[in-house]
Amino acid sequence: MTKVMICGAMGRMGTTIAGMVVENPELELVGGVDVRSGTVLGKPVVDSTSLASFIDEHKPDVMIDFTVAAATMVNAKIAAAKGVALVIGTTGFTPAEDAELLHAIKNVPVVKTTNFSVGVNIFWELVREAAKRLGDYDIEVIEAHHRHKKDAPSGTAKTILKVIEEEVGVRDEMYGRCGMTERKNEIGVHVIRGGDVVGDHTVQFHQNYETIELTHRAYDRAVFARGAVRAAAWVPGKTPAVYTMKEVLNL
Amino acid sequence: MTKVMICGAMGRMGTTIAGMVVENPELELVGGVDVRSGTVLGKPVVDSTSLASFIDEHKPDVMIDFTVAAATMVNAKIAAAKGVALVIGTTGFTPAEDAELLHAIKNVPVVKTTNFSVGVNIFWELVREAAKRLGDYDIEVIEAHHRHKKDAPSGTAKTILKVIEEEVGVRDEMYGRCGMTERKNEIGVHVIRGGDVVGDHTVQFHQNYETIELTHRAYDRAVFARGAVRAAAWVPGKTPAVYTMKEVLNL
Amino acid sequence: MTKVMICGAMGRMGTTIAGMVVENPELELVGGVDVRSGTVLGKPVVDSTSLASFIDEHKPDVMIDFTVAAATMVNAKIAAAKGVALVIGTTGFTPAEDAELLHAIKNVPVVKTTNFSVGVNIFWELVREAAKRLGDYDIEVIEAHHRHKKDAPSGTAKTILKVIEEEVGVRDEMYGRCGMTERKNEIGVHVIRGGDVVGDHTVQFHQNYETIELTHRAYDRAVFARGAVRAAAWVPGKTPAVYTMKEVLNL
Amino acid sequence: MTKVMICGAMGRMGTTIAGMVVENPELELVGGVDVRSGTVLGKPVVDSTSLASFIDEHKPDVMIDFTVAAATMVNAKIAAAKGVALVIGTTGFTPAEDAELLHAIKNVPVVKTTNFSVGVNIFWELVREAAKRLGDYDIEVIEAHHRHKKDAPSGTAKTILKVIEEEVGVRDEMYGRCGMTERKNEIGVHVIRGGDVVGDHTVQFHQNYETIELTHRAYDRAVFARGAVRAAAWVPGKTPAVYTMKEVLNL
Repeated sequence: MTKVMICGAMGRMGTTIAGMVVENPELELVGGVDVRSGTVLGKPVVDSTSLASFIDEHKPDVMIDFTVAAATMVNAKIAAAKGVALVIGTTGFTPAEDAELLHAIKNVPVVKTTNFSVGVNIFWELVREAAKRLGDYDIEVIEAHHRHKKDAPSGTAKTILKVIEEEVGVRDEMYGRCGMTERKNEIGVHVIRGGDVVGDHTVQFHQNYETIELTHRAYDRAVFARGAVRAAAWVPGKTPAVYTMKEVLNL
Repeated sequence: MTKVMICGAMGRMGTTIAGMVVENPELELVGGVDVRSGTVLGKPVVDSTSLASFIDEHKPDVMIDFTVAAATMVNAKIAAAKGVALVIGTTGFTPAEDAELLHAIKNVPVVKTTNFSVGVNIFWELVREAAKRLGDYDIEVIEAHHRHKKDAPSGTAKTILKVIEEEVGVRDEMYGRCGMTERKNEIGVHVIRGGDVVGDHTVQFHQNYETIELTHRAYDRAVFARGAVRAAAWVPGKTPAVYTMKEVLNL
Repeated sequence: MTKVMICGAMGRMGTTIAGMVVENPELELVGGVDVRSGTVLGKPVVDSTSLASFIDEHKPDVMIDFTVAAATMVNAKIAAAKGVALVIGTTGFTPAEDAELLHAIKNVPVVKTTNFSVGVNIFWELVREAAKRLGDYDIEVIEAHHRHKKDAPSGTAKTILKVIEEEVGVRDEMYGRCGMTERKNEIGVHVIRGGDVVGDHTVQFHQNYETIELTHRAYDRAVFARGAVRAAAWVPGKTPAVYTMKEVLNL
Repeated sequence: MTKVMICGAMGRMGTTIAGMVVENPELELVGGVDVRSGTVLGKPVVDSTSLASFIDEHKPDVMIDFTVAAATMVNAKIAAAKGVALVIGTTGFTPAEDAELLHAIKNVPVVKTTNFSVGVNIFWELVREAAKRLGDYDIEVIEAHHRHKKDAPSGTAKTILKVIEEEVGVRDEMYGRCGMTERKNEIGVHVIRGGDVVGDHTVQFHQNYETIELTHRAYDRAVFARGAVRAAAWVPGKTPAVYTMKEVLNL
């Protein structure tokens, strides 16, 4: 059985992940760390400053971390130094932090991505297949998230744009058509914000008499936890390297 | 039987309208005018400079005009002077032209609107009903048209925004969210351009756990002709005034 | 402050409702009953057999019940006998049970409906407004729910059909077109089942060149709890009668 | 320049094709045959009984045929005997006719498919890519066509089902869920009929917390003509065989 520990174990994402770990017969939850000590599903959670001794005592095979950049910069290094495999869903690293982190944890296998949803990772592959075949179509990207989301477009939409441009070449991104406009060799990007939308992403390919549209819709933030748990079951024992969900899912 | 004549009778819109007039048992096509003479569905089409004598000879009850502002400024006045009712789908008048035109034709009943689609006119009413009840929801408007459409957003979308704001109060229109954003008391407006899309309009109302969405989709520009023909059957004999499709359709 | 108690207080729906009650400044959670005793958000939950004495002790103004028909048949009568207003979201009553229940609780104000979502109740009104205006369009209804939902179509879709037919007259419901078909004066009904879809409902109105579509999408089952809590804040003190969300929301 | 002739050259589909041929700089329209003689875009159209002498005189490289089975059975054989490549969009052959026809024209290169839309052919490939990766998702297929379409589901939807089952294995097709249902290892198929919808096809893949959806939407029947013209530019000179759009488009 693979032993799993969680950073931020008592937070919203941490408890969701913990619940999925205990339901997975291949995995054993050993507890975790958080900004304060306590328990998660009956397992011990210690203060983050005690991470090293927690690892010595509970010997996790893998640590899952969906916290904040500052915390991950510290904790991932400690875990890697002790040979613990890593699943990192934290975002918001500067490029310099990102480089420093990846260097510091290069001795262990790591899964790191901005979207752990199994479906989104497959969706990116389908968008690539479509862009490969529909490069001469007019392309538009629409994403929708809850009213409180700050960054626009979403990280997932940015990856969609990257995937498309890898296939059709770099195009201008067009935001907010208004007034007299002329569509050029561009990709229109539309950012909808409202209510409690978990996360919808649509790519449209338009041609003279037809439209092809691909949509991914997430119904629950648990979808991200599910992918992380799948990564945690996969990564221990792999050759040290930074993997994405593409390898985990064997896409 | 109501006698109908058409301005621009041999153009794309004119011939479409002509076809619908002859299929309507309440209407009789008497012909029309265009930049050159000819025929439409076997009926005479004369040069526009002969409009007055065409009216004297054929005695139309109503004239349908979907041409350009400069032509309509001339032709509508001639027809009105001879007591012919008007259906005007021409757009692009300046406010001054618009005022001058309406003054010059005030002796006859006129139907004039920017969208003759029966469905769009009903759609506007439904958007009003929704906005009346969902004023505390986050509202987003999305429209899609073919790649060659220049103005953004569409005239139809502008009317949608006007209808919503009549019900929920004036809000900022937000175009092109990008970077770090914060959703305020605004209406997001999204203008999709691509391929040959005839015209889609969607209004979304988002709240914490649910979304209500209204969509109108046009499949063929003939939809605008159909509404104009319905207006032509309705307007002769009405009290002189400028009507919209709301009165024609008794919405 | 309105005092609220909950039947099935420790179940999935009950705890969701309890959380919303305590967040509402007009409401005070006094606890509830369930098949076993315990607590909900620190408030006492007693065995259902002790409902009468729970009411005597805690004096709730209103009881919210989303349990099963057999339980509601007993508990609602006890509460009504003690003058407690009722919010009933339980379904699955036989017509005879329904009549018996309504007779037994006629001395108190009751809100009872098959869908407490605020948005769905407004959506029904919008469908009615659309059907009123689009009676000559071809109408199709599509609903989607999670893979485990047993009844088809959903209760909400059945109400949609009822609302439409009140406006356009009774039509055949057409399920499962297959083989050689001919569309008559019918309403096509399409039941999608898959994954974890919370509940989507779409009504389409098709005419020659255009389509008008109304969609309601629920993102979380909490949407039903939210409506029930709104009903609980509204119903105490009203004239005894059976109300729906239409009155609660003043639609 | 490739010389193109058209069967049924003066019909709705024939004239649409003719218009696209003359706009294509690689193609030259030489005329065609129909049930009566006449012209198409200024080119001669002779009675079908004179097909052989038309070919002798005008020496077309390829003949496009979107007529009816009985006519194609005769005309394609005559053209093939004279070495003219073929693009066949006619449907409704019996299996015996189909076999007889393919045998009789095996000396020339032929493109024959039930859907010449470039987009639909690419869409089928994308559905295959999705099904390959999403075999454990719940799959639902929805198609919508105009109110007069008789066969259900559409031929295009049947190909979609075939493509999916080639990837995920044979499943039951479920039409018209109604009453108490249980979702098994099935594909739900939903046939919408209404108005003037040209042809929409959607495939949904549902899993616990997410949905992936692929949609193709045709805006104009000309989309089928466009694919046929592309096939006509491709097929002359190819090794004699029966090709589909997959080879034409090099998918």
